[in-house]
Amino acid sequence: MEYFTNVKKVKYEGIDSKNPLAFKIYNAEEIIGGKTMEEHLKFSVAYWHTFAEELTDPFGSGTAIRPWDNITDPMEKAKAKVEAAFELFEKLNVPYFAFHDVDIAPEGESLKETFENMDIIVDLIKEKMETSKTKLLWNTVNNFSHPRFVHGAASSNNADVFAYAAAKVKKGLEVGKKLGSQSYVFWGGREGYESLLNTDMGLEVDNLGRFFHMAIDYASKIGYEGQFLIEPKPKEPTSHQYDFDVATTHAFLQKYNLDDKLKFNIEANHATLAGHSFEHELRYARINKMLGSVDANQGHPLLGWDTDEFPSDMYATTLAMYEILKNGGLEKGGLNFDSKVRRTSFEPEDLFRAHIVGMDSFALGLKVAHKMIEENVFENIIDKRYKSFNEGIGKDIVEGNTDFDKLTEHALNLKEVKNESGQLEVIKGVLNQYILQALSGK
Amino acid sequence: MEYFTNVKKVKYEGIDSKNPLAFKIYNAEEIIGGKTMEEHLKFSVAYWHTFAEELTDPFGSGTAIRPWDNITDPMEKAKAKVEAAFELFEKLNVPYFAFHDVDIAPEGESLKETFENMDIIVDLIKEKMETSKTKLLWNTVNNFSHPRFVHGAASSNNADVFAYAAAKVKKGLEVGKKLGSQSYVFWGGREGYESLLNTDMGLEVDNLGRFFHMAIDYASKIGYEGQFLIEPKPKEPTSHQYDFDVATTHAFLQKYNLDDKLKFNIEANHATLAGHSFEHELRYARINKMLGSVDANQGHPLLGWDTDEFPSDMYATTLAMYEILKNGGLEKGGLNFDSKVRRTSFEPEDLFRAHIVGMDSFALGLKVAHKMIEENVFENIIDKRYKSFNEGIGKDIVEGNTDFDKLTEHALNLKEVKNESGQLEVIKGVLNQYILQALSGK
Amino acid sequence: MEYFTNVKKVKYEGIDSKNPLAFKIYNAEEIIGGKTMEEHLKFSVAYWHTFAEELTDPFGSGTAIRPWDNITDPMEKAKAKVEAAFELFEKLNVPYFAFHDVDIAPEGESLKETFENMDIIVDLIKEKMETSKTKLLWNTVNNFSHPRFVHGAASSNNADVFAYAAAKVKKGLEVGKKLGSQSYVFWGGREGYESLLNTDMGLEVDNLGRFFHMAIDYASKIGYEGQFLIEPKPKEPTSHQYDFDVATTHAFLQKYNLDDKLKFNIEANHATLAGHSFEHELRYARINKMLGSVDANQGHPLLGWDTDEFPSDMYATTLAMYEILKNGGLEKGGLNFDSKVRRTSFEPEDLFRAHIVGMDSFALGLKVAHKMIEENVFENIIDKRYKSFNEGIGKDIVEGNTDFDKLTEHALNLKEVKNESGQLEVIKGVLNQYILQALSGK
Amino acid sequence: MEYFTNVKKVKYEGIDSKNPLAFKIYNAEEIIGGKTMEEHLKFSVAYWHTFAEELTDPFGSGTAIRPWDNITDPMEKAKAKVEAAFELFEKLNVPYFAFHDVDIAPEGESLKETFENMDIIVDLIKEKMETSKTKLLWNTVNNFSHPRFVHGAASSNNADVFAYAAAKVKKGLEVGKKLGSQSYVFWGGREGYESLLNTDMGLEVDNLGRFFHMAIDYASKIGYEGQFLIEPKPKEPTSHQYDFDVATTHAFLQKYNLDDKLKFNIEANHATLAGHSFEHELRYARINKMLGSVDANQGHPLLGWDTDEFPSDMYATTLAMYEILKNGGLEKGGLNFDSKVRRTSFEPEDLFRAHIVGMDSFALGLKVAHKMIEENVFENIIDKRYKSFNEGIGKDIVEGNTDFDKLTEHALNLKEVKNESGQLEVIKGVLNQYILQALSGK
Repeated sequence: MEYFTNVKKVKYEGIDSKNPLAFKIYNAEEIIGGKTMEEHLKFSVAYWHTFAEELTDPFGSGTAIRPWDNITDPMEKAKAKVEAAFELFEKLNVPYFAFHDVDIAPEGESLKETFENMDIIVDLIKEKMETSKTKLLWNTVNNFSHPRFVHGAASSNNADVFAYAAAKVKKGLEVGKKLGSQSYVFWGGREGYESLLNTDMGLEVDNLGRFFHMAIDYASKIGYEGQFLIEPKPKEPTSHQYDFDVATTHAFLQKYNLDDKLKFNIEANHATLAGHSFEHELRYARINKMLGSVDANQGHPLLGWDTDEFPSDMYATTLAMYEILKNGGLEKGGLNFDSKVRRTSFEPEDLFRAHIVGMDSFALGLKVAHKMIEENVFENIIDKRYKSFNEGIGKDIVEGNTDFDKLTEHALNLKEVKNESGQLEVIKGVLNQYILQALSGK
Repeated sequence: MEYFTNVKKVKYEGIDSKNPLAFKIYNAEEIIGGKTMEEHLKFSVAYWHTFAEELTDPFGSGTAIRPWDNITDPMEKAKAKVEAAFELFEKLNVPYFAFHDVDIAPEGESLKETFENMDIIVDLIKEKMETSKTKLLWNTVNNFSHPRFVHGAASSNNADVFAYAAAKVKKGLEVGKKLGSQSYVFWGGREGYESLLNTDMGLEVDNLGRFFHMAIDYASKIGYEGQFLIEPKPKEPTSHQYDFDVATTHAFLQKYNLDDKLKFNIEANHATLAGHSFEHELRYARINKMLGSVDANQGHPLLGWDTDEFPSDMYATTLAMYEILKNGGLEKGGLNFDSKVRRTSFEPEDLFRAHIVGMDSFALGLKVAHKMIEENVFENIIDKRYKSFNEGIGKDIVEGNTDFDKLTEHALNLKEVKNESGQLEVIKGVLNQYILQALSGK
Repeated sequence: MEYFTNVKKVKYEGIDSKNPLAFKIYNAEEIIGGKTMEEHLKFSVAYWHTFAEELTDPFGSGTAIRPWDNITDPMEKAKAKVEAAFELFEKLNVPYFAFHDVDIAPEGESLKETFENMDIIVDLIKEKMETSKTKLLWNTVNNFSHPRFVHGAASSNNADVFAYAAAKVKKGLEVGKKLGSQSYVFWGGREGYESLLNTDMGLEVDNLGRFFHMAIDYASKIGYEGQFLIEPKPKEPTSHQYDFDVATTHAFLQKYNLDDKLKFNIEANHATLAGHSFEHELRYARINKMLGSVDANQGHPLLGWDTDEFPSDMYATTLAMYEILKNGGLEKGGLNFDSKVRRTSFEPEDLFRAHIVGMDSFALGLKVAHKMIEENVFENIIDKRYKSFNEGIGKDIVEGNTDFDKLTEHALNLKEVKNESGQLEVIKGVLNQYILQALSGK
Repeated sequence: MEYFTNVKKVKYEGIDSKNPLAFKIYNAEEIIGGKTMEEHLKFSVAYWHTFAEELTDPFGSGTAIRPWDNITDPMEKAKAKVEAAFELFEKLNVPYFAFHDVDIAPEGESLKETFENMDIIVDLIKEKMETSKTKLLWNTVNNFSHPRFVHGAASSNNADVFAYAAAKVKKGLEVGKKLGSQSYVFWGGREGYESLLNTDMGLEVDNLGRFFHMAIDYASKIGYEGQFLIEPKPKEPTSHQYDFDVATTHAFLQKYNLDDKLKFNIEANHATLAGHSFEHELRYARINKMLGSVDANQGHPLLGWDTDEFPSDMYATTLAMYEILKNGGLEKGGLNFDSKVRRTSFEPEDLFRAHIVGMDSFALGLKVAHKMIEENVFENIIDKRYKSFNEGIGKDIVEGNTDFDKLTEHALNLKEVKNESGQLEVIKGVLNQYILQALSGK
């Protein structure tokens, strides 16, 4: 049956289109620098926000109106969602999707029953995938919502919970293998603390390290070939999440000898909450060769919680695509819309409308970033600003051929130190020009 | 001559004292757990805030009234400040002080002249130290205020500036050796970026790594025996400082193989600006065996800049002293008051009044934390909460004797997962009780 | 039947007590300045957090374990909660409670049925109150959780919703009259906007003004004698709530000629979220003679959402009680614990443990503030600092006997402008001394 | 003499221009909706940032290189700046400028001498204005930088300081009259408090009210015809500024019967610091008919202090121009660049480069907003969303023809409450489309 009966296959109609159910910029087949837009952007639909989210907030119950609302049996509802999901994937023409275990199948009375429920749904998904172009970008498990994880999962004070979490990840890896997920993501969930007053932070973080090693060993044992990703977030639900930001997580991965085994899944809104720009987190990961995948959303700059809005800010999408293009793309990653429709956008069609805005915004970002790279806009600025490191004392510094004695001699002989304006205002103006001209065909 | 003529040697008068120029809690000779308060707390006066600060802010010129204001010759003024400093150290009875190069001696027309100025003042300080109990906790150099450092120092885009910065640090290490500084501190100053749009972050951070290695090599060459410390700060003056917080800096140190060569100098206000509690930063450093020293101040929880207030919050000082005592003290570090009097506290006597409040607040923190540790308050909570890791599957996890298969088997066999309340509210109440009873003699 | 079987009537045991189910500081009958602690503090239990809260958060389902969990019929459960509530009130010995309509009775299929459900429970509560000392501090209605209020209530774009909200407030006033509530509270709930892009802010705010007038008219018509209170909050659930803070709401009340008809209900955590200290909001209301009641909780200074923690910070409770005492108490208001146990404090006993910490913390604040007022600590500082307004040109200014010409003449004749240090550090130290000595009997 | 020898008169070259000293979008003579761009935008240069700013920050001394740096006599330097200013105004072709007293003339040894210095420079400015198109948008006085204002000006605890501040404002009004300033601005400066612990907030705010009334009386007396403006800011330099935001200031103005005598001067960065969007503050003022003028700059969303950046964000300029156009323009106000070049943009030419980016960004905003209004984009959305208030019960509500009884009857008779999606994501996409098509000529 058809679930989204008011929506037809979404087509590209160009920037002038007033149709909210058409792409204005995203044109999957359009070639940019030798690859299609689809290959560059690798959009993914997040199962949780799109099919499991009821649009509650801490002060209100769910507003979402969904075509499967009248189904009461949990397994039947789960199956209906799979059907609806593949209908949406096809109508939106997205190449990927992503899920947590609990998004796709209801928990049972026991862990065994939970696994059995999941197996049934996974088989159904596998069957749907056989006739669909849409692949599984990544999967993960939800080890944070159930009360048993109230004190954390791998960082719980309760060893039984650690074991329970391990069992769920083990199953997640098996599901990933079965469905051919490109990556497996770890988001901390409740791995953090509410207060140090009752927390053994040293033990908890060590246990996290142990958990990752066991997960990697198990993946190796079963021949799971996906990429491991870790997703930083600074706070919420806990007051302090151990994977605060990319750098903090980099410290963790290095400490536990995991930095060659995982890459980052970077979410825009998590960057904001940590006090960083989205591009900062991407850049940090890129220069450390650890940029794996992206959770494409946006936060509200004046709010202190995760709003997970669909991305629409063209500055953010441009600078993100710049980092991604400079990274040579995302290989086993993609742009996953970890974005939910606003609680006030509760109609089924809003799921389409919002994805379209997100896809158009990133398509615009791709166009602008690609053109700026082609024209070496930032590269020329950098080359000029840092040219002193290509010769003389600068070259010696970079190549390790100097020391404090030689540098001091150099400094004592300097007549003056001459700096040049960074011209940041001009550069921001240039960025505006590129955005404004992105669709002009020049 | 006497500079602070309105202030006599500050004495301990007890909690009832209404004299703002007396200690109410700090009693240097009082024994706490086998050591004197002075040995535990190792207070240090910051030369910059106390002798160089004019109490300007971005919207106002300096308000400070200082006994040396009428001296116009820069070198004479510098000498007067040294005299005044040792008078203050003696009257406050502080065992340590700390400075940047530019705090103690004026910059000259050339780097050579700057070094000559510094030598004169350093000799004077050395002479004063011979008859004073006050030692040099740490020294550093200011590589951020002069316009030449507008684009950074070791992370500048200008190789000449890198060299200039190196020359200043080289001199700083020599000064440290001469004066016997316990530590040498690196605070990033302007090592960071204003915008990624014109920044080669990869090169800049690599250069920072190179700079540290050269500094360490030079210290080794001249036989400087102090501890190297690095001080994180998230933002201000740059939009993003490379040493954002302890964890970010830990990642940097590991990446460049510096993590066994430096420890952290942790400032309370920098923690707040990074979105962390003071105790979080201390805990992170402690469990990584990298807690070196502390910049004792406090920020304003509702303001987004470094207010560098004298510490007065008893919760903060208690939890800080808890971490320091659990660390076995600070070895080559101390509690340095990187704190300035408010711009509205512009009288010379305020320098004393404010230090006294800071010293009393940390003395109280010491008393409370010591008693709580003696009575195992937090330790008992932790032992009880984490007891599952002392036996069975928990022990296997900690000792590395398990894997996902075994853990899954354990999880599948669990009848129920039983968690216990974290009782955080109760623990906060207990902390209040200990603070309220700190001076009761019980 | 007894619901909280593990808890006996909570007694005062003094500061040394290690019993988490005893008061350490709060002693209801103790006389402070001619009134009992109970009369000063007027504690109130919030029905929603204590009896309706399931301890969910945006990333997790409810963890609360409650003695009435096994009751499935909504009306039976509502009745059980009433019984449990009065048991808790009696065991805690609290003189007040507060509720929203939906806290006490389940919504029905229709508005009519909702009202009928409410009538049944209200009658039960009335009956319980007849043999209980506990009175109704205030009541209100929840016009924000149900999906019908997705776009607001009195500020909805939908006139039917405005009418629906009016009907619920009308009922709320009738319930308040029946149960003798001291006040009726308006908290904005969803009265605000998510984005100006689709909002007619002018109309929405005008409608809010109209709504208040109609509510007041209706109260007058039925002879409801409670005080009207309005409770500011800056954000959450909407991005911008119209009652952002006390000052914003003061502007609103003045504009719509409502400032003599309502006073403020001030919540600590809402103050923090608005970028203010708790005492700022209280002071603003006090000097405008509009301090009506207090929602006693605390936020987390590093988190950007409403954590509604039980108050434990002694600085905050002291400064709050200072404002309340200077206000001559709260008349028809009280200290309502709009506080929830942490999601990790999920046991039934935690409801008691947490209230005890909150009550003790405010009792301490009362003791400290009372003593400071008795000894004119802040008053003496203020008198001295502002003495120039008691004579000469200062007196002329305050009494309106001068103008710019006379002031300029005065200024031109001044030899120097002499300011004095604000000595803020000293004052913070004095506050510490008073806290530390609060229980010393001096 | 010519000061900015590297800069010629700035011309419009169109969006393709790569010349950083040309306008790409701003074309003064271009007609938009019947008025020229110049008439719509009314750009103003801020004398302080452009001619007085040395580009210091709390961690660094001034970096600015200015053509008048080698002049040492303060009055000669002041005169040179006037010459340079009118050269810049002419080359940039800006119709307005704005200043504080201390920006244009140095303070003397006495207030009398300060006024004499000012008179000389004001005469020079008047002379320059006779042959220039550039008019004075507004003037004000700086009552916050000098140490005498350490505790505030009109809210000082020192009556002498109040008088001094009055004398300076009196002179400012006379200067405004002489130079024909369109408005006189009050920015609070240091009117606020650092801590309530030593502040008599009630007296201070009352005194502020008195000060405004005396200023208005004096303006009336001398026949000054400019508009009075008040500029809110939440914090910095004080911890709490009394004019926190537009709403807070609205409350103040109403309380002291000043709301019909002043309008708002709204600064983008101050909005951000207060936790509001720029457009929120503009909207609030507009719907209260109090939108007077705009300080056109932008803040950094992740920094907690006033960065006063030149505006470049096209979303912000579009939404600001939308409010301004809906306001019917700014009458006696304008777009004043209260913006400073970055400390790293220290070359004289950066003053031009940065203004050009700001002017282009607002010109773009004007174009987009104008077109959206012409096509009723937001108006249609609003009309549709709020249509229920045009008939039936909604009309009754708006027209005051209903009460709680009638509304309740309506609510009880409702079969269902039907809400519609707010479609916020779609609207954001539409805004993107309008920006991208702004220069396409469609």
